[in-house]
Amino acid sequence: MSAISLKGIFPPIPTPFINGEVAHEQLTENIQKWCKTGISGIVVFGSNGEYPYLSVEEKLKTIDTAVKAVDGSLPIIVGSGCESTKGSIELTNQCAALGASAALMVTPFYYKGGMTSDAMNHHFTNVAGQSKIPVILYNVTKFTGINLSAKLVGELSSHQNIIGIKDSSGNVSQLGEYLNAADKNFEVMVGTAGALFGALALGCSGGVLAAANVAPEICVEIYKLVQTADFKTAQKLQRRILSLNTALTATYGVPGLKAALDMLGYFGGEPRLPLLPLAEKECREIKQILIDADLL
Amino acid sequence: MSAISLKGIFPPIPTPFINGEVAHEQLTENIQKWCKTGISGIVVFGSNGEYPYLSVEEKLKTIDTAVKAVDGSLPIIVGSGCESTKGSIELTNQCAALGASAALMVTPFYYKGGMTSDAMNHHFTNVAGQSKIPVILYNVTKFTGINLSAKLVGELSSHQNIIGIKDSSGNVSQLGEYLNAADKNFEVMVGTAGALFGALALGCSGGVLAAANVAPEICVEIYKLVQTADFKTAQKLQRRILSLNTALTATYGVPGLKAALDMLGYFGGEPRLPLLPLAEKECREIKQILIDADLL
Amino acid sequence: MSAISLKGIFPPIPTPFINGEVAHEQLTENIQKWCKTGISGIVVFGSNGEYPYLSVEEKLKTIDTAVKAVDGSLPIIVGSGCESTKGSIELTNQCAALGASAALMVTPFYYKGGMTSDAMNHHFTNVAGQSKIPVILYNVTKFTGINLSAKLVGELSSHQNIIGIKDSSGNVSQLGEYLNAADKNFEVMVGTAGALFGALALGCSGGVLAAANVAPEICVEIYKLVQTADFKTAQKLQRRILSLNTALTATYGVPGLKAALDMLGYFGGEPRLPLLPLAEKECREIKQILIDADLL
Amino acid sequence: MSAISLKGIFPPIPTPFINGEVAHEQLTENIQKWCKTGISGIVVFGSNGEYPYLSVEEKLKTIDTAVKAVDGSLPIIVGSGCESTKGSIELTNQCAALGASAALMVTPFYYKGGMTSDAMNHHFTNVAGQSKIPVILYNVTKFTGINLSAKLVGELSSHQNIIGIKDSSGNVSQLGEYLNAADKNFEVMVGTAGALFGALALGCSGGVLAAANVAPEICVEIYKLVQTADFKTAQKLQRRILSLNTALTATYGVPGLKAALDMLGYFGGEPRLPLLPLAEKECREIKQILIDADLL
Repeated sequence: MSAISLKGIFPPIPTPFINGEVAHEQLTENIQKWCKTGISGIVVFGSNGEYPYLSVEEKLKTIDTAVKAVDGSLPIIVGSGCESTKGSIELTNQCAALGASAALMVTPFYYKGGMTSDAMNHHFTNVAGQSKIPVILYNVTKFTGINLSAKLVGELSSHQNIIGIKDSSGNVSQLGEYLNAADKNFEVMVGTAGALFGALALGCSGGVLAAANVAPEICVEIYKLVQTADFKTAQKLQRRILSLNTALTATYGVPGLKAALDMLGYFGGEPRLPLLPLAEKECREIKQILIDADLL
Repeated sequence: MSAISLKGIFPPIPTPFINGEVAHEQLTENIQKWCKTGISGIVVFGSNGEYPYLSVEEKLKTIDTAVKAVDGSLPIIVGSGCESTKGSIELTNQCAALGASAALMVTPFYYKGGMTSDAMNHHFTNVAGQSKIPVILYNVTKFTGINLSAKLVGELSSHQNIIGIKDSSGNVSQLGEYLNAADKNFEVMVGTAGALFGALALGCSGGVLAAANVAPEICVEIYKLVQTADFKTAQKLQRRILSLNTALTATYGVPGLKAALDMLGYFGGEPRLPLLPLAEKECREIKQILIDADLL
Repeated sequence: MSAISLKGIFPPIPTPFINGEVAHEQLTENIQKWCKTGISGIVVFGSNGEYPYLSVEEKLKTIDTAVKAVDGSLPIIVGSGCESTKGSIELTNQCAALGASAALMVTPFYYKGGMTSDAMNHHFTNVAGQSKIPVILYNVTKFTGINLSAKLVGELSSHQNIIGIKDSSGNVSQLGEYLNAADKNFEVMVGTAGALFGALALGCSGGVLAAANVAPEICVEIYKLVQTADFKTAQKLQRRILSLNTALTATYGVPGLKAALDMLGYFGGEPRLPLLPLAEKECREIKQILIDADLL
Repeated sequence: MSAISLKGIFPPIPTPFINGEVAHEQLTENIQKWCKTGISGIVVFGSNGEYPYLSVEEKLKTIDTAVKAVDGSLPIIVGSGCESTKGSIELTNQCAALGASAALMVTPFYYKGGMTSDAMNHHFTNVAGQSKIPVILYNVTKFTGINLSAKLVGELSSHQNIIGIKDSSGNVSQLGEYLNAADKNFEVMVGTAGALFGALALGCSGGVLAAANVAPEICVEIYKLVQTADFKTAQKLQRRILSLNTALTATYGVPGLKAALDMLGYFGGEPRLPLLPLAEKECREIKQILIDADLL
C-alpha cells in the first residue's frame, strides 16, 4: 500500500459538464492549474464533485482522466463511498486499479435509523479490510443527517487501512475530540474553510475545502502560516475568506462554486440537473464576494 | 400509455437476498402470495426495497422477475427515481421496457439547498415528459429531508404524465392540502399505514404501506370498509395495526419488516450491509407485536 | 374535584391587547360570542394565548375575567404549565382558586437533554398530585422540540388526576397509539384542525384548535357529523378548513389569527412584542383565505 | 452608563438550591471562590443558571446576593432576557437598579415562526434603547432553535447600547462572520469551551463557558496564552478540557455541572425539578472525567 500524506490543502474539485456530459479536456486543464497552487492533492467526487449524479462508468472514466492529469505529481483521493458496503468496495477497488491513491468514504445514510454505531463500525471495517487503497472516513452531516461520534472514530482509527477522517461539521470541538480519541497516525482533516485556521491550530493535519478550488493559494498560505506560528497573519487571511466560504457552501453550493471558477479562469460550467445554474443576480453577488476577497 | 389505477392497497415489497445476492426465486414466490391478498398492485424499489443498495443491473433483473411473477394480473410500480434527472429518465425507461406500469419518483435530496421548488418543478416535468410510463411523485421526508409543498404538487398535477403522489409524511393535513390543490384526476396515496384510515376518509385513493407486506388483508379490509362507509370497524382495524406499523417503520425499519415476513411464511431474509439483521431480542419483540395484532 | 368532559370543540383563545395591555372588556365580549357557537369549553393560555408574554399577575387577572365571562356556562381550561415543577403547581392552584376547571400542562422544554421520560414522568406526577384541578398533558412539539411517547402517556394515564392529553403534532398515528396505550377514561384531544376529522374518526374525544377561534361552527359541525357517522359531509367540511388552518398556524401564527378575528367581528388586535402584527399584504391573504372558506 | 469590558473569561454560574430554595449563603461562598481564579466577571442566569425555573422575585434576590458577593471587584452580567420585549426591559432595569453591570439578552424563541430578522431587530433595539445597562446579545441555538445571522448582528452592533454577543453555537466560522460584520467596538464572546482557543485565535474577546465554572484557571490560562501567542501550550490545554466540556454541556448539562462542582469544593447541589440529579453511575463518569483532566 503506497503511503499518502493528509497534510496540507486538498481541493474537492467539481466535475465539469458540457451539454450534460463530463468535459474531460476541461477537467484536465483545471487540474493542471490547481497543481501549480501549492496544494497537496486533489479530491475527485467529494460532495462538490456532484458524485450522486454520475453513473459508475462516468465515475471511472473521470478518475482515469484525473489520474492522468496529475501525472504522478500529486495524489488523487476518490470519493468512492456508496450506500451499500458491497458497492463501496467494488467502486473503490476499480478506482484503485486506475491509480487513485486513497478513498474518501462517506457514511451511508439513507436508512438513518439503521445506521447505528454498530452498523457503521461493521461497514467501515469491511470496506477498509477489502480496499486496496487507504480509506479516509467522510463525515458530512449537512448532507447525510448522520454524525460519526468521537468514540466510533477512535475505534476505527486503530484499523491499519483507515488513515484519517474528513469532517465537514465545522465544529472545532468535535475535531478536537476526534484528535483526542484517535490513534497516533490517524489524521483529522477539516472539511470547511470557515474552520480552517481553528482546526489547524488545534492539530488537524489539513483541509479538504470547497474554497480551496477558488482560493487555493490563500488556503495553502494559512496552512503554512500555522506551521510557522504566524497566527496574526493567519487570522487576517482566515477572516478574509469567510464570506467566500459561506457563499460557496451554505448559500449557493455547487452552482456557486462553478460560477466562481468561470470568473477566475477555470472552467466551471453548469451543474447537472436537477441542480440549476445560478441566476444572473446571484452571479453578480458571487462576483462581488470575489472582489471583496481580492480574488478578482 | 396504459392506464393504471392508484386505488387500493400497494405493498412496497422488500428485495430478498441470499448470501448478499438478490434471491429471484424467493421474490417470485413472495409476489405470488401477495397477489392473492386483494392488493391492487406491487411497488418494487420503494424505500423498503433497499433500492439504494442495488446496482442498475440488479435493479433491472429484479424488475424483470417481478413483472414475470405478477404475469399481467397486477401492475408493477417501480421506484426508479435517481439523484440526477438524466439517471431517473434512463432507469425509468429501461424499467418501462421490461413491463413496469408506472414509476415512483423520489425527490432528489443530496444537495438539499439546491432542491428549490423551481429545481423540483424542472426535474419532475423533465422526467415525466420523457418517461414512457406514468410518473407518481414520492415524498418521503424522513429519509430525504425534503418536503413537497401543496403548491408545487398542485402545479405538477396538471402534467398529463404525472398521475399521483405517495406521501409518507403521515400528516393528514398535508394529504388534504394535496387533494385540494391537485387536478381532478391526480390521485393522492398515503405512504404510512398509521394514517391509512384518516387518509382514505379524507379522500385519498389508496395506500403504499410497509405494513401491507405483513398484513395485506387488514389493509385491504380497511380500504373496503371506508368504501362501504363502515367506519366503526375501520377504526377498530386501524387501531389494531398501529403498533405493528410503528415497529416496521420508525423502530426497526427494513430488517424488522424482513424478520416479520420470515415469521409469516414469506421469505424475508437478511438486509444488505450496512443494514444489520435484527438481534434475537428484537425478533422476539417483533413476534410479540405480530401476536398482539392477531397475525401470528 | 369537579368532573370536566373533554368531548367536543375547545378554542384556545388569543389574549387581546390594547396598547400592549390586556384588554379585559374585549376579552369578555369575545368569550361571550364564542359561548354561543356550540363549543364545549374555552382554553385560556394555550400557545395562541401568548402565555409566555404575560406576567403571573396578568395571567391571574385574565383567568379571573375569563371565568366571569363564561359565568358557569362553560368550563375554562387554563394553560398553567411552567418550566419548573414548583412554578407549575403554584400557578395551577392559583388559577383553580379563581375558578378554572382544568389545567393544560405543557411539557417543560428549555433543557431538552434533561427532559427524559423519567424526568417527565416525575414532573407530571408531581404536578397532578398537588393540583386541585384535573391535569391535561400538552404535547406541542413544534414549539417545544419535545415529544411525549405513547409509552409514557400510557403510564401517566393511570394517574387519577391526569384526565387527558392535547397533542398538536398532527400525527394521527400517534393519536391512535395514545388511545391504544391509555386507560379507559383518559381522553385524547387533537390539537390541530388539519387532523380533526381523522382524529375523531379514530376515537379522539375532541379538539383544541386555533381554527376553532375563527370557525367554531364548522369545527363543531365536523364533531357532530362524526358522532352521527355522516362522513361524507365531514370530509367536505374538513377539506374546506385546511388552508385556513395552515394560514392560522404554520404560516402566520398568532398575528394571523388576530387579524382574522378582526375581520370576523371579534376583537383581535395586535400581538405583544416581539411578535409583529401582519403586514397589509399578509392581511389581504388572510382575507382571501376567509373568503375562500366562506367565512367572509 | 458604566463601561464594562468583555475581555477574558466569564463563568455562567449555576444557581444553588437547598431543599428546592435558592441557597444564598452557598452562592456567596461560590462566587467568592470564583473571584480568586482570574476571571473577568460573572454571569448570573445564563442557561446554566436554571433561569427559566426561577420567579421574578427569586431572580432579583439572587442578583442582589451576587452583586454583594463580588463587592465591586468584578462585574455581574445578568441573563434578564424574557420572551416578551416588555418583560425583558422591566427585568433588566430591576437588575440594573440592584447593581448588575450588563444584561445578557437571549433571543425570544417560543413562537419560532414569528421570530423573523425584523422582529428580532425590533426587539433588541427596543430593549437596548430602554435598558439602563449595556446589552449583550445571546445566541444559544441548541436551547432556542433560533440563530442570529451575521447580517442582523452587524446591524445591531451599531446600536450604542448593544456592546457584544455571546454565541454558543460552537461554530467558529459564524464567530468570524460576526466579527467581520460588526462595528469596531462590538465584542464577540464564544459560548462554548470546546471552541475557546479557535475563537480567541480568530479575534473573539473572551468566553462565557460552562467549563469555566469547573476549570476557571485553565480557561483563563488559555486566554492568556493566546494573548502572549503561545499557541502550542494553548493547543494542549484546549484539548485537555474538551471531554470535560462535552460532559458538562451536551451529555449531562446542569446536573452534571453541579455534580462536578460538588466534587471540586464548590457547592453544587441538586437542580430544580423537573431536572433530575445525576444517577450514581453518571457521577462516577463525571469524576473520571475530572481525574482525566487533572482537576481531581
